[in-house]
Amino acid sequence: MGRISRVFTWRHFLILSLALNVGFVLRFVNEGVTSRAEQSIGNGFCVDEKMMKFSETVMADGEAHVSKRSSHVSSSVNACTDGEDRVINLDHGDPTMYEQYWQRMGEETTIVISGWQSMSYFSDVKNLCWFLEPVFAREIITLHKTVGNAITEGYHIVVGTGSTQLFQAALYALSPSEASRPISVVSAAPYYSSYPSVTDYLKSGLYRWAGDAHSFSKDEPYIELVTSPNNPDGFVRQAVVNRSLGIVVHDFAYYWPQYTPISYPANHDLMLFTVSKSTGHAGMRIGWALVKDEEVARRMTKFIELNTIGVSKDSQLRAAKILRAVSDSCEKIDGKGENFFKFGYNLMAGRWRQLRAAAHESGLFNLPEFPPAHCNFLSRAFEPQPAFAWLKCDGEIEDCESFLRSHKILTRSGRHFGVSPKYVRVSMLDRDEIFDLFVERLSNIH
Amino acid sequence: MGRISRVFTWRHFLILSLALNVGFVLRFVNEGVTSRAEQSIGNGFCVDEKMMKFSETVMADGEAHVSKRSSHVSSSVNACTDGEDRVINLDHGDPTMYEQYWQRMGEETTIVISGWQSMSYFSDVKNLCWFLEPVFAREIITLHKTVGNAITEGYHIVVGTGSTQLFQAALYALSPSEASRPISVVSAAPYYSSYPSVTDYLKSGLYRWAGDAHSFSKDEPYIELVTSPNNPDGFVRQAVVNRSLGIVVHDFAYYWPQYTPISYPANHDLMLFTVSKSTGHAGMRIGWALVKDEEVARRMTKFIELNTIGVSKDSQLRAAKILRAVSDSCEKIDGKGENFFKFGYNLMAGRWRQLRAAAHESGLFNLPEFPPAHCNFLSRAFEPQPAFAWLKCDGEIEDCESFLRSHKILTRSGRHFGVSPKYVRVSMLDRDEIFDLFVERLSNIH
Repeated sequence: MGRISRVFTWRHFLILSLALNVGFVLRFVNEGVTSRAEQSIGNGFCVDEKMMKFSETVMADGEAHVSKRSSHVSSSVNACTDGEDRVINLDHGDPTMYEQYWQRMGEETTIVISGWQSMSYFSDVKNLCWFLEPVFAREIITLHKTVGNAITEGYHIVVGTGSTQLFQAALYALSPSEASRPISVVSAAPYYSSYPSVTDYLKSGLYRWAGDAHSFSKDEPYIELVTSPNNPDGFVRQAVVNRSLGIVVHDFAYYWPQYTPISYPANHDLMLFTVSKSTGHAGMRIGWALVKDEEVARRMTKFIELNTIGVSKDSQLRAAKILRAVSDSCEKIDGKGENFFKFGYNLMAGRWRQLRAAAHESGLFNLPEFPPAHCNFLSRAFEPQPAFAWLKCDGEIEDCESFLRSHKILTRSGRHFGVSPKYVRVSMLDRDEIFDLFVERLSNIH
Repeated sequence: MGRISRVFTWRHFLILSLALNVGFVLRFVNEGVTSRAEQSIGNGFCVDEKMMKFSETVMADGEAHVSKRSSHVSSSVNACTDGEDRVINLDHGDPTMYEQYWQRMGEETTIVISGWQSMSYFSDVKNLCWFLEPVFAREIITLHKTVGNAITEGYHIVVGTGSTQLFQAALYALSPSEASRPISVVSAAPYYSSYPSVTDYLKSGLYRWAGDAHSFSKDEPYIELVTSPNNPDGFVRQAVVNRSLGIVVHDFAYYWPQYTPISYPANHDLMLFTVSKSTGHAGMRIGWALVKDEEVARRMTKFIELNTIGVSKDSQLRAAKILRAVSDSCEKIDGKGENFFKFGYNLMAGRWRQLRAAAHESGLFNLPEFPPAHCNFLSRAFEPQPAFAWLKCDGEIEDCESFLRSHKILTRSGRHFGVSPKYVRVSMLDRDEIFDLFVERLSNIH
């Protein structure tokens, strides 16, 4: 201690301070009984048979009767076994793969908030979106400039409790308030499995799910959801209906260089983004919308005011610090910090190689083939390497989800995405241990 | 430096660490341009005429056409003047009054979260409410035990993005999913001004606002909202309809000892609480529900899953630390920490004395009179001292809100609460500077 102190500088103080903070946080988290083992149950670690019911219920769809079955969740969990009994849950897109990057970043991205801060409802009353933290808004603009995946000049930023809330805010803002019947909401199949249930769970008189955009033929106003790259299949998309009465909402949750080539800075009327899939911080529940029309942005803000009276300031401040770290990592040319997107790109590239090799070795599964494209951010061409694998079972296997379930691999059936049960969606974003176990087991299914 | 280091102990490290944290936070917040001045604009500090429009729009109601007027908000704000030109905005219940307590608590309640923590969607997959942080759940139970304002044994806890989201989750959970028409939602006037708009903004086919509970006569299922103590008038309430087909939701946002005597531990079927009005942390957007019926709790959880896929982990962890500090402050008998509720009680008692004196001096305003009751927590009898003053203008003044607006005092008209415009609701929770300015100006209106 004495020797340390003789060379005490502010830098040392900082290191000591942050070291202590880790201690406090760890102690705090341990007190919370949210041990790593427990946290992991939901997203891939060993669980008993009853846990397999869980993936059917949570985030699969909004049917009330389905939720009843999640009573099984509260049952106790068996001890881990590392062999074939271990259930691999890749039903959800829980982005825990990114934990290793942020652990390597150390305390540079630690957020510290005093008890007396951020108490007011208001963040910036001069802003149209009065609950948007200005520092978060600035970091959103910096990140899009750095990556080149979206234009921010001339756009209003609306923050949301994840992009799911912003999606509903967009439906509210774009629905004709005086219409005699709800406006149709469509998306090209395979579409994100939550769109139908999130659109219809309140039986709103403003909007109504109308299914696959390919088969939408009504000559009336409609809202088309374009997810690009697409969840579940990873392909780049454009609107398919293209009628005069249509309004398009672009979900760009996956338009980041670790998943797909950044071919142009997006400049559509209404674009949704989220930290869950860009930086991996799903637990923050933070998303943002870039909105061209002022009145639409105002109505989206009104929706979030009525729905949750704003968005957590704590998470906005933390998200600002995370986004700043990501932008900084892209500027660094020396060895000081690893470029976040290069880390993500390399990890996804390796995982897709592993998965394609396993599917080939098994011989029972097909994966989509993607044309390479040039990425302006990474200054090279590559094939998309999506956050989800859109797996198709071969031959006689009609229900791919049940087939994989029989091998204790939990995935999401194509049924939920409006297509055949021969398809399943598999998360590519889980921790290394789980992903390796998955590809190993898949390769041994013959 | 050298002398400090010779007596270096972990306690010193802690103090140094926390001292540095303050520095980091302050720097961080300053970078955020969310300066105290800006934060304050929305809740009472000096603003120009255009700002007066703001209170008409934000959190007043959900009418889309109203939100248009908030375009004025983005206009610039005039420099402060301390005299009569200064607009006093007490329309919202922004609980900034509590900042002084948490500032005095210092860094004891500082939250520190590393970049790699709380990344998963899941908090406790074994819990019915799978996104509820276990440490937060435990602190909720401890606080209710300490205060004695609610029973927690045999209840399920559901966390929400503020109690506004939980209110909607309750409507979703309690509505018959197969009903031919929406269930009626009622509350006795004067009722919380947001109930009608939050119930109807999506034109849900599940539930529909049916107005004042006193005039509800339909012989069909209904949901009655009972806010006790009531927002806006502060009176203790029970259900008024009392029919066999009714379901009651109790909003206990203000059932805390600083506002009203704690006469019994509440044990109703569905009870809502929020940190916004209990500890003053509105910016966290954290509330919780105590729910007796497992299926209702499961459906509320499903609503929040569909609405926002869970609740900010960062704010839950911070709320846990704040609730723990409140519970601890109630245990302390030495001078180490000030009892949070005694602080709040004394502050509210003083403010109500000031307000009644000012109303008396003016002679133009009436305030409700409350019967004293025994508080089991403070072990004494006292009269309720609500978070809002329900002010009635005397004689010829028919529109009290416009009258006070002409004196640059922004309040919320009785119209929004289902009663006469002779009434206004005034926030009692703003910072000392604003409250003192308010009572001074009120006393001079003759």
